[in-house]
Amino acid sequence: MGSLDENLPLPSIHGFKPLDLGDLREQVHQTVDFIMDYYKNVESFPVLPSVQPGYLRGLLPATPSDKPTTFDAILRDLRRAILPGLTHWTSPNFFAYFPATLSSAALAGDLLASAFNPVAFNWLSSPAATELESLVLDWLAHLLRLPSRFLSSSASTAAHGGGVLHTTTSEAILCTLVAAREAALRRCGGGAAAISRLVAYGSDQTHSTFFKACRIAGFDPAHVRSVPTRSESEFSLEPASLRAAMAADAAAGLVPAYVCATVGTTSSTAVDPVGPISEVAAEFGAWVHVDAAYAGSACVCPEFRQYLDGVERADSVSFSPHKWLLACLDCTCLWVRDTRLLTGPLGTDPEYLKNGPSESGSVVDLKDLQVGVGRRFRALKLWMVIRTYGVANLRAHIRSDVQMAQGFERMVRLDPRFEVVVPRRFALVCFRLRPRGEMGEAWADKENRRLLEMINESGRVYITHTVVGGKYVLRFAVGSTLTEERHVAGAWELITKKADELLGAENNPARNI
Amino acid sequence: MGSLDENLPLPSIHGFKPLDLGDLREQVHQTVDFIMDYYKNVESFPVLPSVQPGYLRGLLPATPSDKPTTFDAILRDLRRAILPGLTHWTSPNFFAYFPATLSSAALAGDLLASAFNPVAFNWLSSPAATELESLVLDWLAHLLRLPSRFLSSSASTAAHGGGVLHTTTSEAILCTLVAAREAALRRCGGGAAAISRLVAYGSDQTHSTFFKACRIAGFDPAHVRSVPTRSESEFSLEPASLRAAMAADAAAGLVPAYVCATVGTTSSTAVDPVGPISEVAAEFGAWVHVDAAYAGSACVCPEFRQYLDGVERADSVSFSPHKWLLACLDCTCLWVRDTRLLTGPLGTDPEYLKNGPSESGSVVDLKDLQVGVGRRFRALKLWMVIRTYGVANLRAHIRSDVQMAQGFERMVRLDPRFEVVVPRRFALVCFRLRPRGEMGEAWADKENRRLLEMINESGRVYITHTVVGGKYVLRFAVGSTLTEERHVAGAWELITKKADELLGAENNPARNI
Repeated sequence: MGSLDENLPLPSIHGFKPLDLGDLREQVHQTVDFIMDYYKNVESFPVLPSVQPGYLRGLLPATPSDKPTTFDAILRDLRRAILPGLTHWTSPNFFAYFPATLSSAALAGDLLASAFNPVAFNWLSSPAATELESLVLDWLAHLLRLPSRFLSSSASTAAHGGGVLHTTTSEAILCTLVAAREAALRRCGGGAAAISRLVAYGSDQTHSTFFKACRIAGFDPAHVRSVPTRSESEFSLEPASLRAAMAADAAAGLVPAYVCATVGTTSSTAVDPVGPISEVAAEFGAWVHVDAAYAGSACVCPEFRQYLDGVERADSVSFSPHKWLLACLDCTCLWVRDTRLLTGPLGTDPEYLKNGPSESGSVVDLKDLQVGVGRRFRALKLWMVIRTYGVANLRAHIRSDVQMAQGFERMVRLDPRFEVVVPRRFALVCFRLRPRGEMGEAWADKENRRLLEMINESGRVYITHTVVGGKYVLRFAVGSTLTEERHVAGAWELITKKADELLGAENNPARNI
Repeated sequence: MGSLDENLPLPSIHGFKPLDLGDLREQVHQTVDFIMDYYKNVESFPVLPSVQPGYLRGLLPATPSDKPTTFDAILRDLRRAILPGLTHWTSPNFFAYFPATLSSAALAGDLLASAFNPVAFNWLSSPAATELESLVLDWLAHLLRLPSRFLSSSASTAAHGGGVLHTTTSEAILCTLVAAREAALRRCGGGAAAISRLVAYGSDQTHSTFFKACRIAGFDPAHVRSVPTRSESEFSLEPASLRAAMAADAAAGLVPAYVCATVGTTSSTAVDPVGPISEVAAEFGAWVHVDAAYAGSACVCPEFRQYLDGVERADSVSFSPHKWLLACLDCTCLWVRDTRLLTGPLGTDPEYLKNGPSESGSVVDLKDLQVGVGRRFRALKLWMVIRTYGVANLRAHIRSDVQMAQGFERMVRLDPRFEVVVPRRFALVCFRLRPRGEMGEAWADKENRRLLEMINESGRVYITHTVVGGKYVLRFAVGSTLTEERHVAGAWELITKKADELLGAENNPARNI
């Protein structure tokens, strides 16, 4: 818990310099050495730690020390107490959830953002932060071939499109939901009390954060629809089902307000058809948000852009470069066709923030497009990632991950004990042990559950599961920044070995050849 | 923009290494050199930039390049295009808003958080991130002498207190507001439609984000009260006024649900009396949240702790170490007396996140205490700040800023042209040119407005304004991390010089001695 020699003396009240430049250089240099050492070794760490709940309290003091601690001692504690409890999202053997990608350029950009530390709530409080954000969102809109309605550079008296960087998709959904809610209240003319008549729509595959955002925004939980999907339509939200749900609600005197369409669902990367869904929503005057949190990154490649087709009819679209475009957490891009629909309910104008540029109407104040007031300078890392690597490399990065996932998929298909459960579109493979002979779905669920435990308990890889179409399915998401083909091959080897242990090696057809 | 030699060749699809360790070291080293150079010179930069809206589009390309750019070229662009448009929050001559403090330890901690990049939405997805967050919140609760009801280490079957790190105060207010809304709905038994009968209370000094959070959470804007304050009670929320407002609402059949008490308002650091306000709220069963965003940091010093007196009766309390405790953006601590009141409305349990530890109930999943799902590892920088500097230095840091503000206040009081408008409690001085002779308040407002413009146009310091008690007032907030006494003295010298120019030097009594 820190020996005496780790404690430094106290300076006098005015002698304390928390931004001493010598300390800064030394501490950051030590930190980058620590990080390099971590990345060199992360492949050998158990991806999922084996610590027990409460483990950390036994390793660190219960109360803070009055005295300073040497940076060396802090790094030793990091190694001793923190690293063993980390789930290593940066491990090349991490195939769980969706990846959280990063890059040296993002780390450098984030460090600069922390160092400048502008609390860029409005334009004047840091013009460069606001303007770079608007520029980089236009850059990304360009890469995704979004229609010009979403570009701030197209903004004129007639066009009010634009974007904002949020923390995560949850914030993007919440803010657009509030905008849609206010628009629907104006439309139905029932005053604020009519909130209890509004309805929001997702599918049974829509991310849980949509349902949570509806709760936060005050929608009646009984009026938030989870429209059932079917395996026949690959778990996408079917326009006919959506229309039926909206028509029934409208007939019951309710007010359809918001539809969340997902491009690349979390369970299985299902793609809701944005165009047809927008057509249905338009019949009822509802807002359409396109949540492309994961798959949006892939759409920088022309061959994947089709999945955003129809986005020109949507009201808003978001995706998270921290998921798959090498920007580290947190970083979500949101574009809306009319920023005024956000700034209406989310705008504030307290006296202590009043200033000439804001009053002139010639600038955008980004606090009015988000939940909070203060905000990190997230545009910097995003801009540095795109500049440092260039668009061609970003596309290569996506394609490389997809190719590795294709390779994994091929291996799954070659082993008759396994099946690919839903079509692979991006870099996620949903697979499982097949039901065998007369042993049906219940057996398969149980065996796949057990197989997942055995794989993860090994510590050698980390994968997660989902349930689609009633089936317990293993998810293999390629995309951790350090992953190479050999890691994917190694993971498959481990999976088949565990399947051998579970099912008996005699059931492995490969071994019987 | 960018000559040919700045472009690097494209690697093949599998040759792209965004986390190459050599690049990482080189880029971070270059970045830290850039940052040191920036800090060395920031004192000489105009604190408020003089760029015009749209300036950046002329300096950077409108579309991204296909090819990589050298890191040198990117840093040159930073210097050429970004720095001139930054408002320098880290300048020692920045006295605007409230400060956003930082430290070398916070920069190192944030860099590590980016590098580990765990998306620690639940315990299993990175046990160390969740557990360090709980530990460091207990540490800070200890420093603020919060009652044990807010500590997670006191949590047992009978106690469910605990905390979470949010992005900013806005998120803390929003989440507690949603918790209070659900509790009030259960209490009043009117079902979800009763949301339009709920009432939330702040004062006319409460931060605008409270009113915005009420809108987001679906409160009827007509039922969000801004209780008037008076200069006689130093712009604090008076319990009698609150009681009158709540009683009138209750009598009208409305349901008082939430009171936001502020310790250290943004305008003038007014302090709402937490104990008496909580007593009033308890009469109506309303939730009390204590927003100590700025002043909470000062409460690590025993002499300031009095301002939190009564917090043992509140339901939740938050403060932002990014404001005044050397953690850079974003970092807000929220404690609640019963985390179940948050996890009720904010909890989600989708299949793809189900896991043993969560189902066992033995862990806290922090996604259920916040707006979003993914979250940065913010605890790391906070823990590193407290360890690196120690509690005594953190106290010295607060006291040093307060002493500098006291020095500024003394100088204001010695110049009869000026007056201190409200009592200085922390490190913010609210002052103005006095109304002179028969020239009344309208004159004073106009002259103070003009004086502020002249001060800020000089580029040498940046201060902001507010209006309290109908008076236009200048705010001088000491606390930027690099500020020393000489900067405060220099700022006062500039202010008096501008006052000389504005009023005529012959009106400066100091010059007539």
